[in-house]
Amino acid sequence: MATQTAPIGVFDSGMGGLTVLKALREALPNEDFIYLGDTARLPYGTKAPSTVVNYALQAARTLVSREVKAIVVACNTASGLALPELSKAFDPLPVYGVVLPGAVAAIQSSQAQSRQNGGVLVLATESTVAGGAYQRALLDISPGLSVRAHACPLWVTLAEMGEQSNRLTDEILCHELRGDLPSTVLLGCTHFPVFNAKLKDLFPTVRFVDSADTTAEWVAKDLAEQGLLQSKARSGQSEFLATDGVARFIRVGSYFLHADIEHVELVDL
Amino acid sequence: MATQTAPIGVFDSGMGGLTVLKALREALPNEDFIYLGDTARLPYGTKAPSTVVNYALQAARTLVSREVKAIVVACNTASGLALPELSKAFDPLPVYGVVLPGAVAAIQSSQAQSRQNGGVLVLATESTVAGGAYQRALLDISPGLSVRAHACPLWVTLAEMGEQSNRLTDEILCHELRGDLPSTVLLGCTHFPVFNAKLKDLFPTVRFVDSADTTAEWVAKDLAEQGLLQSKARSGQSEFLATDGVARFIRVGSYFLHADIEHVELVDL
Repeated sequence: MATQTAPIGVFDSGMGGLTVLKALREALPNEDFIYLGDTARLPYGTKAPSTVVNYALQAARTLVSREVKAIVVACNTASGLALPELSKAFDPLPVYGVVLPGAVAAIQSSQAQSRQNGGVLVLATESTVAGGAYQRALLDISPGLSVRAHACPLWVTLAEMGEQSNRLTDEILCHELRGDLPSTVLLGCTHFPVFNAKLKDLFPTVRFVDSADTTAEWVAKDLAEQGLLQSKARSGQSEFLATDGVARFIRVGSYFLHADIEHVELVDL
Repeated sequence: MATQTAPIGVFDSGMGGLTVLKALREALPNEDFIYLGDTARLPYGTKAPSTVVNYALQAARTLVSREVKAIVVACNTASGLALPELSKAFDPLPVYGVVLPGAVAAIQSSQAQSRQNGGVLVLATESTVAGGAYQRALLDISPGLSVRAHACPLWVTLAEMGEQSNRLTDEILCHELRGDLPSTVLLGCTHFPVFNAKLKDLFPTVRFVDSADTTAEWVAKDLAEQGLLQSKARSGQSEFLATDGVARFIRVGSYFLHADIEHVELVDL
């Protein structure tokens, strides 16, 4: 079923997962990718858990029908709510989420810093915070850790507007980070890494970590162990699928991917 | 098919349309209403026009299956994009949108004020602005009018957060209204009337108009002319349907409706 030369499937509710695809392409330059953004039904972050599971299964099924060798759930909400169902439904296909890698990255950052105020603040969508997947993952790994989580719906909208440089962006970013901050802030929504540079400017003493790089490392290591990576050096290609708004995907998606997107295929799940 | 005692169907992509239902209940206290919020697929405002038409037809079909005597499209995006298709599909059922009543209200406000800077600024979702329905309606009625339109996606998110009183709200509201303002601002998204009081405080010389009251007057007048109103004084009831997130609908919806919502039925379109 899964072959070395097959593409890796990646999906998200929209375009935020392209920050994960960016990291995957850097870690695995020989691989082909098929990225699916369920833009017709975004955001997943305000939807009921059962709906998110249902949508995630449909998205994964579309990728499986295109014979991918693995699936990366590049969406925090779907990773937090649907990973067990996806792994079960598509067994033995490897299915990777972004929550556990993100939690590991946050713990590593927290431990690398001074013991004072060494906790972790998770910023995510309403569903991700309410679902508690990040909080559970962090406390499973490090039971004594001080963990807070906070929903930032305005950040999602702001990221999708593709505007990073105006004064209002600073105001909105600072608003969610007022008060006493721990040394590590985990960006638990795939949209948020677009604010990385600005957050580092505004809060130079805080470490902002996200799931993208650790997820890519994790996927690379696991696929290598399973003998599922391309065996030859080559230049991997990416295909893009979306359920709505192809023109908007090309425009806003390029901003998340840090690369031009030339063609997006419209699909129905 | 349509009887005087049947309920009036109202739909929106989510909960914003409850500002229109509020006005309808005030204008038509004897009537029963069935309100459908397509919360699983909100927002419509960033989706492609063909998708919005498709969703609007599905929502209206659900209301028609419950034997409503008229349909009010309490969503600017769907009113701007799908009204002709809806009227055709469900003829002879009366179908009312919010765009034309909103445009009429804005023109009346603009004419009631000094001739200086008497134009209209339309604030709406990305799709409503890009679709141009408000701009066309305003210029059809008043060809010489100065009309500008501007998308405010952050206002939608802010309204759905149900927070009105923090400093960030002021910042976000003011950001979209900086520079030279006309005397009339048309709130072309059903979410925005929740900011009415705050906008009047922040911009005392500007008139903020929305579609809710004029739509309710329009519907009341037309149904009366068609002999379709309840003939007896009674206390009308409202039913609420949503496609996702019933708990969130009860919590955030009450804020848009200015009244408690006790029960919401989960439906699949």
